[in-house]
Amino acid sequence: MNEFTFKPIGYIRSEHHILEKTPIQPVFARECTGRIELLPEYVDGLESIDGFSHIYLLYWLHKAKPAQMIVKPYLQDCEHGIFATRFPNRPNPIGMSIVRFVKMEGATIWVNDVDILDGTPLLDIKPYTKSFDCFPGCKNGWYSDIDPETAQRRGKRGYEEKNDL
Amino acid sequence: MNEFTFKPIGYIRSEHHILEKTPIQPVFARECTGRIELLPEYVDGLESIDGFSHIYLLYWLHKAKPAQMIVKPYLQDCEHGIFATRFPNRPNPIGMSIVRFVKMEGATIWVNDVDILDGTPLLDIKPYTKSFDCFPGCKNGWYSDIDPETAQRRGKRGYEEKNDL
Repeated sequence: MNEFTFKPIGYIRSEHHILEKTPIQPVFARECTGRIELLPEYVDGLESIDGFSHIYLLYWLHKAKPAQMIVKPYLQDCEHGIFATRFPNRPNPIGMSIVRFVKMEGATIWVNDVDILDGTPLLDIKPYTKSFDCFPGCKNGWYSDIDPETAQRRGKRGYEEKNDL
Repeated sequence: MNEFTFKPIGYIRSEHHILEKTPIQPVFARECTGRIELLPEYVDGLESIDGFSHIYLLYWLHKAKPAQMIVKPYLQDCEHGIFATRFPNRPNPIGMSIVRFVKMEGATIWVNDVDILDGTPLLDIKPYTKSFDCFPGCKNGWYSDIDPETAQRRGKRGYEEKNDL
């Protein structure tokens, strides 16, 4: 019960090749298309997934540095506990993104709003559903203190939105 | 890059002691209180988390059976791919629940709407925020075919809501 071993079920491909310029959340990576290359033995597990517009990707933050308990997140120059942020340097570096499903073909799934570094190992895919995952009345902690313009500027980290799409 | 090792950051305590009677999602475990017992070395990472009303828990589904690619989910007698469901028998058995934050004291966090088996090893805590995580206009796949009453009955799996709270 002291260690668990996980293995990649596939890899995420994206246009983000530089860690420092990778957007920090899908809301800052609008129209950034990427794809999942699933390992062939898992393809049957995709049945029915095309009925969902949004899916969770859980992945290994393979470039994360050692865990820090107190961090300054990308969006704000204030310190917060690692568990009150999505910062990558976590005790178990599991990343999570809610991306938009575009289409699939064989072992490839095209997705949109991708904020993930190219080559990232994928751990799991879960369907997003309003009934389980949408809480519009939630309290947003320190995120409430950030104005939307600052959030977009800092959250994109150099990624330029494609306005022509 | 072929295997990643994760370790528990703490354990989840709940009133669910029988796997077969554990609700399958927080929406089917209303007012079911539980707590997280974090390991002492991670307590500093909780700073600022009390500003959020909802938090993600990622945990090891330690009682999951070997992975199946096609499953019949608890809510419906139809077969779907494992990645189009939250069913536990996944290639990497990582569970995810959005629970309500109640209060914390030292290494203990009290949470509500807990659909997790007592003693489950915790992997990560992430803040839930409307800006990143709430998509009210999403398409809900096969979940749309289930009427809310059936969902509540099957999703609770014997757990009785406490109406007196």
